[in-house]
Amino acid sequence: MKRLLAGATLLALTLSGAAIAQDAPFAREIKARQGIMVYRAMQLGVLGGMAKGEIDYNAEAAQKAADNLVAAVTLDQSMLWPKGSGHSANAASTANDDIWKDGSDIGAKGKAMVEAAMAMQAAAGGGLDSLKAAMGPVGEACGACHKAYRIPQN
Amino acid sequence: MKRLLAGATLLALTLSGAAIAQDAPFAREIKARQGIMVYRAMQLGVLGGMAKGEIDYNAEAAQKAADNLVAAVTLDQSMLWPKGSGHSANAASTANDDIWKDGSDIGAKGKAMVEAAMAMQAAAGGGLDSLKAAMGPVGEACGACHKAYRIPQN
Repeated sequence: MKRLLAGATLLALTLSGAAIAQDAPFAREIKARQGIMVYRAMQLGVLGGMAKGEIDYNAEAAQKAADNLVAAVTLDQSMLWPKGSGHSANAASTANDDIWKDGSDIGAKGKAMVEAAMAMQAAAGGGLDSLKAAMGPVGEACGACHKAYRIPQN
Repeated sequence: MKRLLAGATLLALTLSGAAIAQDAPFAREIKARQGIMVYRAMQLGVLGGMAKGEIDYNAEAAQKAADNLVAAVTLDQSMLWPKGSGHSANAASTANDDIWKDGSDIGAKGKAMVEAAMAMQAAAGGGLDSLKAAMGPVGEACGACHKAYRIPQN
């Protein structure tokens, strides 16, 4: 039993060790949250592609992408955003420090993202027009948070 | 409406653009799956830390970590593993090509991981001994997949 426990702990510590500079501040947190953000973007790529007509609308694929989007935006991220773990601490992050300042509405913006994703989940399988109508609020929720809490992108 | 759609699509494409070399093969897929793997490792760090006595057992925190682990291992990854998207295509990945070969049991190993995580979810809040008993199978599931499908780590 002890050997199993030791093995499991070791595995947990080395799961992705090779790909992370463990000594960079908040390297794990940043890698986890950026990976989850890319995952969201990939699902939005499906939904946005259909909305724009670049991908043929398919109810099953749209529903799957919307389900995945909801799963990704509702994943508990409480361990991933320790105070000060933004760009000023590690240039790999594009988060700005306003996230952790008094008056930050990051929680409200996260809630708006969840609500928009859930509306998309209810809409995506119901036809292209239904999907299109849900796309605007999703984009607004993404953009509102990026505008407030992401350092300017080139 | 069209402006909203265009905005949403643009956002989807640029969500994490600054942090990814988009021209590297499978860069997005690798970044997403490694981020999710780190997320799993962080939850296992909590559970393993309690199992080893390095972190005081707390039923609520253990349950939350186990819930998060289940959420992360059940996240649909079907878009994240296109054929050949391993280390041989992009050195940033530590996945070996056996994943995509005939006879690969990656699906069975993934299923075993989900089952071990769900057993942990049922056990983690029920006391330290209960958590410890569920830790071995989780570690075995992690290790079995890494042994078969991950390139050797330094």
